[in-house]
Amino acid sequence: MTLAGKQLIGQQAVTANGAAIHAIDPATGETLAPAYPGGGKQEVEQACALAWAAYATYRGSSLEDRATFLETVAAEIEALGDTLIQRAMAETGLPRPRLEGERGRTCGQLRLFASVVRAGEWLDVRIDSALPEREPMPRVGLRQRHVALGPVTVFGPSNFPLAFSVAGGDTAAALAAGCPVVVKAHSAHPGTSELVGRAVQAAVAKCGLPEGVFSLLFGAGREVGQALVADPRIQAVGFTGSRGGGTALMATAQARPQPIPVYAEMSSINPVFLLPEALKARGQAIAEGFVGSLTMGAGQFCTNPGLVIGVKGEALDAFLAAAGQAVEQSTAQTMLTPGTHEAYQQGVSRLSGHPKVREVARGQAESGPNQCQAGLFATTAADFLADETLQHEEVFGACSLVVECIGPDDLKRIAEALEGQLTATLQLDDGDLEAARTLLPTLELKAGRVLANGWPTGVEVCHAMVHGGPYPATSDSRTTSVGSAAIQRFLRPVCYQNLPAGLLPEALQDGNPLGVSRLVDGKREA
Amino acid sequence: MTLAGKQLIGQQAVTANGAAIHAIDPATGETLAPAYPGGGKQEVEQACALAWAAYATYRGSSLEDRATFLETVAAEIEALGDTLIQRAMAETGLPRPRLEGERGRTCGQLRLFASVVRAGEWLDVRIDSALPEREPMPRVGLRQRHVALGPVTVFGPSNFPLAFSVAGGDTAAALAAGCPVVVKAHSAHPGTSELVGRAVQAAVAKCGLPEGVFSLLFGAGREVGQALVADPRIQAVGFTGSRGGGTALMATAQARPQPIPVYAEMSSINPVFLLPEALKARGQAIAEGFVGSLTMGAGQFCTNPGLVIGVKGEALDAFLAAAGQAVEQSTAQTMLTPGTHEAYQQGVSRLSGHPKVREVARGQAESGPNQCQAGLFATTAADFLADETLQHEEVFGACSLVVECIGPDDLKRIAEALEGQLTATLQLDDGDLEAARTLLPTLELKAGRVLANGWPTGVEVCHAMVHGGPYPATSDSRTTSVGSAAIQRFLRPVCYQNLPAGLLPEALQDGNPLGVSRLVDGKREA
Repeated sequence: MTLAGKQLIGQQAVTANGAAIHAIDPATGETLAPAYPGGGKQEVEQACALAWAAYATYRGSSLEDRATFLETVAAEIEALGDTLIQRAMAETGLPRPRLEGERGRTCGQLRLFASVVRAGEWLDVRIDSALPEREPMPRVGLRQRHVALGPVTVFGPSNFPLAFSVAGGDTAAALAAGCPVVVKAHSAHPGTSELVGRAVQAAVAKCGLPEGVFSLLFGAGREVGQALVADPRIQAVGFTGSRGGGTALMATAQARPQPIPVYAEMSSINPVFLLPEALKARGQAIAEGFVGSLTMGAGQFCTNPGLVIGVKGEALDAFLAAAGQAVEQSTAQTMLTPGTHEAYQQGVSRLSGHPKVREVARGQAESGPNQCQAGLFATTAADFLADETLQHEEVFGACSLVVECIGPDDLKRIAEALEGQLTATLQLDDGDLEAARTLLPTLELKAGRVLANGWPTGVEVCHAMVHGGPYPATSDSRTTSVGSAAIQRFLRPVCYQNLPAGLLPEALQDGNPLGVSRLVDGKREA
Repeated sequence: MTLAGKQLIGQQAVTANGAAIHAIDPATGETLAPAYPGGGKQEVEQACALAWAAYATYRGSSLEDRATFLETVAAEIEALGDTLIQRAMAETGLPRPRLEGERGRTCGQLRLFASVVRAGEWLDVRIDSALPEREPMPRVGLRQRHVALGPVTVFGPSNFPLAFSVAGGDTAAALAAGCPVVVKAHSAHPGTSELVGRAVQAAVAKCGLPEGVFSLLFGAGREVGQALVADPRIQAVGFTGSRGGGTALMATAQARPQPIPVYAEMSSINPVFLLPEALKARGQAIAEGFVGSLTMGAGQFCTNPGLVIGVKGEALDAFLAAAGQAVEQSTAQTMLTPGTHEAYQQGVSRLSGHPKVREVARGQAESGPNQCQAGLFATTAADFLADETLQHEEVFGACSLVVECIGPDDLKRIAEALEGQLTATLQLDDGDLEAARTLLPTLELKAGRVLANGWPTGVEVCHAMVHGGPYPATSDSRTTSVGSAAIQRFLRPVCYQNLPAGLLPEALQDGNPLGVSRLVDGKREA
């Protein structure tokens, strides 16, 4: 399959004439063909007009049709075969097994949403029966369901070229909810984006859906993205990326005549608390698990464990020694982009040059371009608490800071000082339960997900997952970007009062023709 | 019971020293004692500090304790007896039966939320079992529940001194969710607010809850309200009132270092579509029902039917004649405040002076202060569509505009031109079903609630209610301010991954000790 370097607008492939973006192979520094001339106002207008037109039909599509569409997208992505994996490898420097795994996750995610659409829990059907005899006033019947918010625009990050990108979590959730999607491709993997975009286009055609259900725009800089968020037809935004990028979109969304929700997943340092008994009993194993999580994929995960907190003493010293040794043995890995590598180098330099921070270990260096040499640093609780930059700054990549506490009270103090996080982790043994119980209420307020005896990397796509958390981890802690509950972010409730049976949407009709779970007069009917 | 004119901060009654507010009896213009000296930064600081301290305990209170607390608030409000009704009558000009009904609704609402808390649907419990044998990677167990967002600040409107005020819908929903509440009292009914605030204070004490669960602040101007919304401990805002007031709070909430959600219910003109067959068959009855809804409570409802759309012809002429006659016979009613009356007069003047609008009828005039003389006006679809001010401007009070369409296509055109609404109503007969089916998809996108053959005033407090809708009807169409689903606006999800049984919150424990509905491996267990 030859890459065309064009905007995918509905079923068309359109040549734009803005400044072009080029993918770069981060392992070699080589520029990859083709060029992707950037879109502008015209392409945004076309994509949004088609999305709005498609919305009327698509949001009313049957559960079965919509589920089949999601499954068809998955099949079309798989049908791209090794072309997709090879292009993604070239554009990201990520190794084959990782990308094959990510493709599996992406397609599994689309199929999970297909099952979610069919089950119909997301409709949140509520029926309050008419009470014609009620005193002093009778009650007419009221019924509620959820409907699609409207066309959604999605911005993916560089680090998940498949699972959070063109047909990733936000796109799958929005399509599942009945929202057309306009994706702004990440400029680091345009070829991967085009391939997946064409797979979605093909699925739209095969399923006979209106073409505006999906478009994919390319563009250097922020013009296309900002224009999409400002467009009156766009009704919600999904974003994964930097805090600067997310807050810029939030500002645009709020400044619209009609403000819209922005779901931005931004930054997190993912604290790990090493509780004393666990540290004493299995510090070596914890150190190995930690460094495995830290260095996996060059640490380029939003759930990378960037902060470790333990109480100073022999056990923590042993942990530091073991972790340091593992870091030293870790080989360099190619980072996603020159920009990511540059930012990583700056972040590591800030830590190594910080007067209150000491270097514990650095990983193996490598002479090629964009190599991530892992870094492990340490500081004291007092110094950490005294310096907000240490508390707030995510170094994106394989870099972590160990905070040495004087006593157990410091653990709580540090938990309380943290900003909102995607995750918080406890390493604990039976003897640590009381200490964990003390920390847990604070961690619940700081993070969307609390883990025990695991590592935050590797986000399961399931029903109970929360990949979210208080600001600035995300812009909206009331929702998740991974897992089936993500469908809810693209829905709103509508109440139908006293509507004749002939006008009621199928989900709300007597006899429950869709067979969905309903709350009838306050009682759950499974 | 003597009114003290003090801020209620936790269990204390505190004399503030800011500019005082005084209630005014709108029927007489008389100033009512006592004065309420306004609070300032110090009172905001105290209330927020107490709320934050209470949050840790209160959010963890048992479902039964929290439900009992809500029921105790209801009982304490009822125990105020006629003192409450008399003071509310004096402060609002609303008649006794209306206020007695509103008290019933307020207490019923608190008891509904008690039942909602006990049922535990709001926890949205999700359990994904561990899959230790899964290939290529095992899965650990993941469980999700919802937790309280944090302390909430509530701003009530003037028109529901009980049901949307100190212990109204937002307060009840937030308390049900486990959030402490700091209410900024509406300056039009400070005495009513104090009485209800003391009832809540008493319930907090009786139930042995931390005092910061509830505080009530008074203040002239916007200082106290803005300081509350800017306070870092406040995590969400409930507001009912004007578009200007709501958008000012939204701006403050967005400008915080940590932005927070604002649920502002602002403005709506609540279109009513008169479909041809219904209009022909029962225009007279529809006209009477319409004017009853229009003039009830001097039209001072956010769901007041401010816009009526029908196709020009004999039937619409007959409707207009009947409605006009009913309006002419309607007696004047005292409005809530001099400010409300002033704004109403200005709104009516804008319509009566509008070159494209004709006056159909005015109600009876009355010489006392703040009298609402109902107004019915008419214009053409073309003129309506050509003038955004006619489309957007709510005249708060008994005033409505009838839009005469040339043909049925105009109905849809007008529906599409409208901003977001709380409600949209269809008057229809069997022969109108096809026309209704054409309109319905547009109405669903414009309104939170779609009604047939009823009137939008009289919002049922139940499970299926949506009192919400797209901007500018509210700031957040994903939620409702009336009905049991309102609890969701004050919650966020947390995922617990691989937590030892001894650390799991009760809602998530094996054996389902709370007996709540759960989604287990994607299957609903009622």
